[in-house]
Amino acid sequence: MKPKTGVVGLGIMGRPIAANLLKAGYELTVFNRTAAKADAFVAAVGGRKGQTPAEVASAADVVITMVSDSADVEQVVLGPNGIIEGARAGQVLIDMSTISPAVTRAIGARLLEKGVEMLDAPVSGGEKGAVAGTLTIMVGGKPAVFETCRPIFEALGKTITHMGQAGAGQLTKLCNQIICSNTLLAVCEGLVFARNAGLDAEKAIAALSGGAAQSWMLTHQAPKMLQRDFRPGFFVMHEQKDLRLVLETAREVGVALPGTRLIHQLYHAIEAEDGGEKLGHISLIKAIEKLANRVPPGAE
Amino acid sequence: MKPKTGVVGLGIMGRPIAANLLKAGYELTVFNRTAAKADAFVAAVGGRKGQTPAEVASAADVVITMVSDSADVEQVVLGPNGIIEGARAGQVLIDMSTISPAVTRAIGARLLEKGVEMLDAPVSGGEKGAVAGTLTIMVGGKPAVFETCRPIFEALGKTITHMGQAGAGQLTKLCNQIICSNTLLAVCEGLVFARNAGLDAEKAIAALSGGAAQSWMLTHQAPKMLQRDFRPGFFVMHEQKDLRLVLETAREVGVALPGTRLIHQLYHAIEAEDGGEKLGHISLIKAIEKLANRVPPGAE
Repeated sequence: MKPKTGVVGLGIMGRPIAANLLKAGYELTVFNRTAAKADAFVAAVGGRKGQTPAEVASAADVVITMVSDSADVEQVVLGPNGIIEGARAGQVLIDMSTISPAVTRAIGARLLEKGVEMLDAPVSGGEKGAVAGTLTIMVGGKPAVFETCRPIFEALGKTITHMGQAGAGQLTKLCNQIICSNTLLAVCEGLVFARNAGLDAEKAIAALSGGAAQSWMLTHQAPKMLQRDFRPGFFVMHEQKDLRLVLETAREVGVALPGTRLIHQLYHAIEAEDGGEKLGHISLIKAIEKLANRVPPGAE
Repeated sequence: MKPKTGVVGLGIMGRPIAANLLKAGYELTVFNRTAAKADAFVAAVGGRKGQTPAEVASAADVVITMVSDSADVEQVVLGPNGIIEGARAGQVLIDMSTISPAVTRAIGARLLEKGVEMLDAPVSGGEKGAVAGTLTIMVGGKPAVFETCRPIFEALGKTITHMGQAGAGQLTKLCNQIICSNTLLAVCEGLVFARNAGLDAEKAIAALSGGAAQSWMLTHQAPKMLQRDFRPGFFVMHEQKDLRLVLETAREVGVALPGTRLIHQLYHAIEAEDGGEKLGHISLIKAIEKLANRVPPGAE
C-alpha cells in the first residue's frame, strides 16, 4: 500500500511537487503558512488541508518540507505546532528545501530522538522541472530510508542520486550552486565583452556553442540575457541565500571559493537596485554591465 | 584549380593543419623557425620546405600562419624575410594564431598596401580538433575573401563562422577564452568544495551533469582533474597569454571582467611552481586546492 504523504510549503516548488504526488496516486495533506494558498491548492488540485504542520505529520507517513531557508525548516519541524509534535516512530521527513547541511544534521538528530527518520533531498531544475516531474534530486540519509522513499522521488524527479549520509544531499546542492553560478558568470562576462567589442553576440554564441565553451547556461540563459528577459525563474534573493550557505559551508569545510565569493558580491549590486532582489538570477549580467563604459542596446 | 597553400608555423596546431591541407589535395609549402621540424614534416607527411616565410609566400596563393603571439605574427609577416617580402597583390594571408585584434588590424593594413588580403581566423578545439579537422574557426575580414577561402577552412574545421570585419575573428576567440576559463573555474571550485566536504566527487559530477550545471568542461575536464592528469592539452603559459590579450582588449573596449581577471591571477600561482607554465590549463584546480586547508587524495 502506498504511504500517505504530506507537503509543508506550497510555494513555486512545493505546489507542483504536491500536485505530482496526487497525480501519482498518493493520499496527500498539505500545509502552507499563508493558509489561502493551501485552500486554493485543495480547491484546484485536490488533497486535504492540515491546520498545522503537526496535523500534516499526524495524517501522513512521509512528510515533505519545501520552504525557503534553514530557519523556516527549523520552525515548521521543531517550532510550535511543528511536524515533530505530530510525528511518530517509523515516519520519514524528506526536506527538499535548500538549507545548511549543519542545520540539516541537527534537525535530523532531534527527529531521531522520536524515532523519526529524515532525508535531505534538495532539488535543481526549477519550477519547470518541478511541474514536469523531471527534477534532479540529491539525497542524503540512511540508504534503507532512501530506498523506501524511492517511488516518491520517482514521482517528482528524473535524476535521483543517493549521495551519502545526512547532509550529503545539501552539500551536493551547494556544489551545484557553485558550478551553476560560476558558469553563469562565464556567460555574462563573455556576452558583455562581445557586445562592447562590437560583435554580433547571437552569432558569437552560435559559433562557440559547439566547442569547449558549451554549457547549459550558454544555451539556455544567454538568449534570455540578450532579450533582457530578467523575469524569475529563480530570484536573486534566493540565489544570494544559497551563495551565503555555500560560503558559510565552505568555511566550515576549509575551502576558499574566490569565484563564488566574487559572484556573491556582484549580486549585491543587483540587490541594491529597486526590486533587484526579485529579478531572475540571470540579471547577474547587469552587474558586469555596470562595470562597462557603454550601455548595451536594449539595456535599462 | 585549387590555390597553392603555405603554412608558417608547424607547432602542435600548425602541423596537423598542414597535414589536413595535404590530405585535402592542396599543394603545400611549409616553414618553421626551428628548421628541423619542417624537415621532419616534409619527410613524414609531405609538401615542400621554404627557406623563409617570404619563400613560402612566393610559392603559395594562400598562406596560413599559426604561431604563438602577436609579436611572432608580426615577425613572420612583416619582419626580415617575412611573408610580405614574397607576397603579391591578390594573395591571401590567413592568420590562425590567437593574437591581439588591434595588432591583427595593423598587420592587415600593412598587407593591403601591397594588395594582399588578410583574414584573422583563430581556432578552438585544440590539438585533437586540429588532427581530426573539426576545429571551430572564427573568421574576421572581407566577406568575399572569406568565401574564396571557405574550402580551405572546410578542410580544417567543422564550425566555421564569418564574424565580421578584420579583427572580429580574434575578438570572438577572446570571447571564447573568457567563457571557457570561467566555466573551468566553475568546475574547479565545485570539485574542491565537493572533495573537502567529503562527497564522492565522481558521483556528484554524474548527479549534476544532467542539469543547469552541465558544461563541456564538467563532462570532459572534471574527470581528468580527479585523475590528476595535468598533461597539456593546452599549456598554462598559452592560457595566460590569451588571458592577457583578453584583459588588454577588455580595457580597450571599456569592459571590466572581474572573473577573468581573478582567473589570470590564480594561474600566477601555477606559473610560480617549477614547470607550472607547461602544465595543462586544467591545473587551475591546483590554485583552488592551495586555498583549501586539506590536501585531496592523490594531489601532489
